[in-house]
Amino acid sequence: MGKPSQATRDKLKTVSTATICTALFKRGLRKQMIQDVHPLNPALGNMVGEAFTLRYIPAREDLNPISVFTDPSHPQRKAVEDCPPGAVMVIDSRREPRAASAGSILVLRMMVRGCAGIVTDGGFRDAPEIARLAMPAYHNRPSAPTNLTLHQAVDINVPIGCGEAPVWPGDVIVGDGEGVVVIPAGIADEIAVEAFEMTAFEDFVTEQVLAGRSIVGLYPATDPKTTTDFQAWRKAKGR
Amino acid sequence: MGKPSQATRDKLKTVSTATICTALFKRGLRKQMIQDVHPLNPALGNMVGEAFTLRYIPAREDLNPISVFTDPSHPQRKAVEDCPPGAVMVIDSRREPRAASAGSILVLRMMVRGCAGIVTDGGFRDAPEIARLAMPAYHNRPSAPTNLTLHQAVDINVPIGCGEAPVWPGDVIVGDGEGVVVIPAGIADEIAVEAFEMTAFEDFVTEQVLAGRSIVGLYPATDPKTTTDFQAWRKAKGR
Amino acid sequence: MGKPSQATRDKLKTVSTATICTALFKRGLRKQMIQDVHPLNPALGNMVGEAFTLRYIPAREDLNPISVFTDPSHPQRKAVEDCPPGAVMVIDSRREPRAASAGSILVLRMMVRGCAGIVTDGGFRDAPEIARLAMPAYHNRPSAPTNLTLHQAVDINVPIGCGEAPVWPGDVIVGDGEGVVVIPAGIADEIAVEAFEMTAFEDFVTEQVLAGRSIVGLYPATDPKTTTDFQAWRKAKGR
Amino acid sequence: MGKPSQATRDKLKTVSTATICTALFKRGLRKQMIQDVHPLNPALGNMVGEAFTLRYIPAREDLNPISVFTDPSHPQRKAVEDCPPGAVMVIDSRREPRAASAGSILVLRMMVRGCAGIVTDGGFRDAPEIARLAMPAYHNRPSAPTNLTLHQAVDINVPIGCGEAPVWPGDVIVGDGEGVVVIPAGIADEIAVEAFEMTAFEDFVTEQVLAGRSIVGLYPATDPKTTTDFQAWRKAKGR
Amino acid sequence: MGKPSQATRDKLKTVSTATICTALFKRGLRKQMIQDVHPLNPALGNMVGEAFTLRYIPAREDLNPISVFTDPSHPQRKAVEDCPPGAVMVIDSRREPRAASAGSILVLRMMVRGCAGIVTDGGFRDAPEIARLAMPAYHNRPSAPTNLTLHQAVDINVPIGCGEAPVWPGDVIVGDGEGVVVIPAGIADEIAVEAFEMTAFEDFVTEQVLAGRSIVGLYPATDPKTTTDFQAWRKAKGR
Amino acid sequence: MGKPSQATRDKLKTVSTATICTALFKRGLRKQMIQDVHPLNPALGNMVGEAFTLRYIPAREDLNPISVFTDPSHPQRKAVEDCPPGAVMVIDSRREPRAASAGSILVLRMMVRGCAGIVTDGGFRDAPEIARLAMPAYHNRPSAPTNLTLHQAVDINVPIGCGEAPVWPGDVIVGDGEGVVVIPAGIADEIAVEAFEMTAFEDFVTEQVLAGRSIVGLYPATDPKTTTDFQAWRKAKGR
Repeated sequence: MGKPSQATRDKLKTVSTATICTALFKRGLRKQMIQDVHPLNPALGNMVGEAFTLRYIPAREDLNPISVFTDPSHPQRKAVEDCPPGAVMVIDSRREPRAASAGSILVLRMMVRGCAGIVTDGGFRDAPEIARLAMPAYHNRPSAPTNLTLHQAVDINVPIGCGEAPVWPGDVIVGDGEGVVVIPAGIADEIAVEAFEMTAFEDFVTEQVLAGRSIVGLYPATDPKTTTDFQAWRKAKGR
Repeated sequence: MGKPSQATRDKLKTVSTATICTALFKRGLRKQMIQDVHPLNPALGNMVGEAFTLRYIPAREDLNPISVFTDPSHPQRKAVEDCPPGAVMVIDSRREPRAASAGSILVLRMMVRGCAGIVTDGGFRDAPEIARLAMPAYHNRPSAPTNLTLHQAVDINVPIGCGEAPVWPGDVIVGDGEGVVVIPAGIADEIAVEAFEMTAFEDFVTEQVLAGRSIVGLYPATDPKTTTDFQAWRKAKGR
Repeated sequence: MGKPSQATRDKLKTVSTATICTALFKRGLRKQMIQDVHPLNPALGNMVGEAFTLRYIPAREDLNPISVFTDPSHPQRKAVEDCPPGAVMVIDSRREPRAASAGSILVLRMMVRGCAGIVTDGGFRDAPEIARLAMPAYHNRPSAPTNLTLHQAVDINVPIGCGEAPVWPGDVIVGDGEGVVVIPAGIADEIAVEAFEMTAFEDFVTEQVLAGRSIVGLYPATDPKTTTDFQAWRKAKGR
Repeated sequence: MGKPSQATRDKLKTVSTATICTALFKRGLRKQMIQDVHPLNPALGNMVGEAFTLRYIPAREDLNPISVFTDPSHPQRKAVEDCPPGAVMVIDSRREPRAASAGSILVLRMMVRGCAGIVTDGGFRDAPEIARLAMPAYHNRPSAPTNLTLHQAVDINVPIGCGEAPVWPGDVIVGDGEGVVVIPAGIADEIAVEAFEMTAFEDFVTEQVLAGRSIVGLYPATDPKTTTDFQAWRKAKGR
Repeated sequence: MGKPSQATRDKLKTVSTATICTALFKRGLRKQMIQDVHPLNPALGNMVGEAFTLRYIPAREDLNPISVFTDPSHPQRKAVEDCPPGAVMVIDSRREPRAASAGSILVLRMMVRGCAGIVTDGGFRDAPEIARLAMPAYHNRPSAPTNLTLHQAVDINVPIGCGEAPVWPGDVIVGDGEGVVVIPAGIADEIAVEAFEMTAFEDFVTEQVLAGRSIVGLYPATDPKTTTDFQAWRKAKGR
Repeated sequence: MGKPSQATRDKLKTVSTATICTALFKRGLRKQMIQDVHPLNPALGNMVGEAFTLRYIPAREDLNPISVFTDPSHPQRKAVEDCPPGAVMVIDSRREPRAASAGSILVLRMMVRGCAGIVTDGGFRDAPEIARLAMPAYHNRPSAPTNLTLHQAVDINVPIGCGEAPVWPGDVIVGDGEGVVVIPAGIADEIAVEAFEMTAFEDFVTEQVLAGRSIVGLYPATDPKTTTDFQAWRKAKGR
């Protein structure tokens, strides 16, 4: 499992998940958006990092008394200490938000350790506290019951599903105010470059539309004048 | 397809979707609320305009490469340029928010063209940007994937379903902080008048309740004193 | 139906639903969180009060014309006037948010009467107005249609289900920014004490983690030093 | 709570739930079909009887050990012994089929006691055995877990919801191979008469269509010849 | 809108929807299966015919009294008389089975007229009667309430969605005991040929597996001996 | 991963999943029923065997062309050849039935190899063919699209979730006409004994109820006479 280069990371910090989805769509990848997860604090900037995964299965009552957490090798607790700085923990909670995937103390610990973010297709408990942290977190909805109620962590860093998307360890995860997208590790660099370029064009188009220009010929750029104007705009803007 | 009169439009700017629903309920119309759509910017005032509809079907992969948008007659792009100023575009996305119904550039273009708003029972991409625009937009939830992933626009201005509600072109659409309601074109004027009157009464009742009065006899006004007091209040308030 | 003591009420004002859920989990109670309800105003402090219940069934059209509310003994209206000060009204709306459970005037009346809050597993109409009131309210989502559209109130203060949780009249209801939990009346005092103690420990742990300490041995406190440090911290903090 | 007359019962034995739904629709009653319940044995004839209701709420673990059934006054067991011969037990299971509403022994006991049938919007356990009994039973799907897992019976013969339909004790319940419909007690006689007449006409139409006649003018009978032909057919058939 | 050739029709009568789905998958078409519809009579052979579509929107109460069917140009009734012999009517019911899409008299009329079948992503009323007809019908589940309760027919032979699949008029519809698949008109011939060939191979494989052969090298045919054996089998079987 | 003893297997062949659920409930295990899966052939006897698991994640398009099955080490194909005789394959399909979990050829191969059954919380393709095999199979509903459309097999014999139930390799799986239950390996013997005894008692009770006896004192056996009668019945029946 590699890590995205700093250049790729920097570019992905500035583009939207929507733009990335379009770049993935052009390559035949239509299911990379983690469905129905939301940022606890939409004001934080983009979340970018390689995926570190955690897999939950339904909790069997006899295996999940409150005492399990006294074992430091419990996969959930181990994952919190092992997730590398710069990585994003992605949890397969089977789209089950009726019990928590994790709470504020664990998320805080990950923040202190330098992790880049955390995502679950279930819910976090202590959501109001997590929303005040500086590390991005995404979930379906707040969920106060302890994870032992419905979830048992069993695997670290295996391929998982999260919100109907496939997540392979090392894939590059990007989150913005809209949600979270999964970029296959092998194409992260090219997607970053393409999305960065697309973003410049979209910013140009937005300015033009705001100034009253029709989208016909402009978006997409079927009128050659659009391309000319865009080149001039880039030069003027230094982009 | 007509347009609501300015008087009707003005009244509807000041009443709530809840009050309109009650006026519709009295006429036997119980399904006019577009279910489970939410304003991207609840701080904007009411959205009011006649319905201009757009119909999507599931996207067949061979018919929906990224290149389709180079055709200016593509129904989605055409709709954005054709939706009349003052109208509200209502999109039938089959309650499918897993791919976008539209993105910020198209919504911005509609705003610049003077449209009154946009509604989908799916989701918008670039939702954070759309939330900062001055034109009201309503959806189920943010959705970054391009609409081509799951949606193909096929019809403009035909009767559609949106969020379980029937929407006929020309129906009067009203949105507030709570959601969006569809008023059949033929009764828009009378509903506007009735809702306007109801709103005055509800404002009076709210004041009375805040002052400590019981709802018994007051709401509804079964105590004759309520009617007398209300008339006095209207005179005093100039309403 | 009793009421929680002032000491219990005071403690519950300061703890989270997440902490309460863990205390309940330790006693084998896994389903006390009302699922998928959200505060209309998350900025209000905790909601605490004994449950006063209202039960809805599907509305039959002939029994639910708009005129039913002229009867002051209509269960919904009677409940609003009868819910004791300090109590929380909990409504069984069968998880059906497509029509309202109540609107702002009724909620305002309850606020003026000194009730502690209101919860439905459906939705409120006039949600933007309710969000501005000083009494906490929780629902699934805003819903403008009058409750007569889909709901008929039939019973007051019977055991109900709300959001998949059992609610018995007199149970102690606690809501925070995350949601609402139901504490069986008979164990409210001990849960309050336990949750209050747990909260002190969690606050200590949070400080430690923020200062860079690992969760191993700290959370849970398997390292004896954790217990020693916590005792010192309590003394220092006067908690 | 009355009972349907024998004449009404006899007629309802011979008509379909679809025909009854249309007769109810003409009276403005659109929600009387219990949604998404299915006969365990579609080969049995129509189920007809007055509603005897049973209400479940979510089970709280401490109140629902296996030992509760040693109490003969437990509402579920009491209901099985109290449901009158000729009546249909209708259970409000909150559309929750993940634990059983009842099992074969209780259903058998009701059969022996002469009850007319049983309906739940959850599921039955021992469904293969129940499917072999002579008394009609309807549910959403088989469900093996004991009802104590998720359900606690709390009320007998109160108004309930079942499959989104309102059910008042004494309403007349009719089930066929398609599902179950609820006829308000006060109009059961007239609905039975009307549905009986409609059935004769539909049988006539079916014969005509099978013989090659177009539905235009025939169904509905806008062509006067249809009415004449139908009268002749009735005379010939003795209906 | 063309029709499939007799040769194509004949081949499609003998292959499964599963095999067709694989042939479509190879061409990048992943969403052509109409989701969650079931045959009312699984014992009938394959349904094959070109799509004739009917589009429903949510019913507005004032536009849908029982009297609308007195108008022979009502789109639902007109569609029943206009659907060509050999065609399959596909109804977009917005995956809403709580009211009927059609009933037995209309389906019988279509059978008499020589139509090839009928599909809805909602439900049929009089389902037990329809299950006894010789024309294949597919739906989600039985639904007794008249279609006017929730559906209004508005369009004939436009592109629609049905069970999440895109259906264009003239597409070739195939149903078997498993469900219904939509073959784009332009590739129906080649899909029929390919699926016919695949079926021969699958029949061969099934025989081999039944005789004890491992799937390794056999399915798919990576072992050259498999191909040789298959050729011999075809010759022996005359296929 | 052990195997259930022959004695345990024999007993479990004769008891119902409902009875097993009750025995598990008494031990605090409330979530062992695989929710919403159904037998393709309800006429086959009980399915009994130790769990052999297969885990799917969402399919990424570039990793799942049709050619992947040419690799004999593909986890799905490998699992079919590796699942031990006497074992039940349980597939975690994330409750996603919109593409197949497997088809008839693979299921047939497992039958020939002596496996005891197969379960998915998704759907099988070629369901009509599988329904005619002698090996029990359980799924949510038929699903024709190839599994590559939505599923990628990644793991064999790891703990999984299936239909909301936890399944650990080696757990004892029992299926009957009602569904499938998971017995933790360590208590399979005692559950088998207890369920076997309970079944004798339930058979006795059923006979008594059929003969007209009330359930009071009989079920459960609070009347000492019940116990006496049961002992006599056992002696007479030789059970």
